[in-house]
Amino acid sequence: MSSKSNDKDLGVRKIIYDKDGKPCRSCNTLQDFQFATGKISAKDIQHIKNGTEIAAASPQETILNSKAYRRVDPPGVEELGRSSWNLLHSITAKYPKSPSDEQKLEMKQFLTIFSHVYPCNWCASDFEKFIKVKAPKLNSREEFGRWMCEAHNEVNAKLKKEQFNCDFWEKRWKDGWED
Amino acid sequence: MSSKSNDKDLGVRKIIYDKDGKPCRSCNTLQDFQFATGKISAKDIQHIKNGTEIAAASPQETILNSKAYRRVDPPGVEELGRSSWNLLHSITAKYPKSPSDEQKLEMKQFLTIFSHVYPCNWCASDFEKFIKVKAPKLNSREEFGRWMCEAHNEVNAKLKKEQFNCDFWEKRWKDGWED
Repeated sequence: MSSKSNDKDLGVRKIIYDKDGKPCRSCNTLQDFQFATGKISAKDIQHIKNGTEIAAASPQETILNSKAYRRVDPPGVEELGRSSWNLLHSITAKYPKSPSDEQKLEMKQFLTIFSHVYPCNWCASDFEKFIKVKAPKLNSREEFGRWMCEAHNEVNAKLKKEQFNCDFWEKRWKDGWED
Repeated sequence: MSSKSNDKDLGVRKIIYDKDGKPCRSCNTLQDFQFATGKISAKDIQHIKNGTEIAAASPQETILNSKAYRRVDPPGVEELGRSSWNLLHSITAKYPKSPSDEQKLEMKQFLTIFSHVYPCNWCASDFEKFIKVKAPKLNSREEFGRWMCEAHNEVNAKLKKEQFNCDFWEKRWKDGWED
């Protein structure tokens, strides 16, 4: 791993590289990845910081012979994170109130494998450590939903984001905000 | 399962219900779910179809004592689908070029459990059937990425969406659209 000398001045975090030496798309923010691969320049980043417009970094023309599909780039670490929390919390919302031993075992396996195959390596590794220290609580939907909320808050803390009040996990991920 | 008599006229598909008799949030589109739960009316749907504005169905105030978190409702079937494909395709993009037997077995288990725990029941059941008929190809990244693309196209076909040209799977999910 290495990072360019002036990355910090630009608000670019340490660039994460894949084993093949290329910047890792699913481990870096879109902006960091675009900077590391020369898609955007220091000047562009300054423009982003100032809120002034830059040319779209990735052209959005339709794919060859396609009417519907545009040339959308693979998700970066932030979009992938949002997507994955969407899925994981929704899974807890549908977990049985009184799961069978088989359902508990399957969910435990699912989370373990998730921590091996999640595309952002450092995120995967952090999650793997988390479930070793704080084993998933799988005896009921309520327990599992709250555990996942706490797992998410662990990541929020690392990213210096606000803690979510887990008393509201069911409203956010299961029932909605009834008036 | 049941559906209101005038659903079709409104462009509402058959509402899917949970075992507890309530409309299933992660199995219906946001609009269908809101209609089924009385959050939006036939008039609102007509407005949506006509492109005229309606009042926001779900208030977006900040959660009690929170600065950052808004009262966002749980994702419906479409957002959950987009999120999950984001994750699944990204997983294929990071799958080893030459996986070990253990890695192949883990991924097979992951997909099997995924087909049991995916929050949208009918989607999960369709995916379970799909992997029984067309077993996941896990001998290489290329094979797995293409298999996932074909799995996605199976769903596209059901939803009458355009087929994605799987020759482009690596550009869409791994490398981006280099000029």
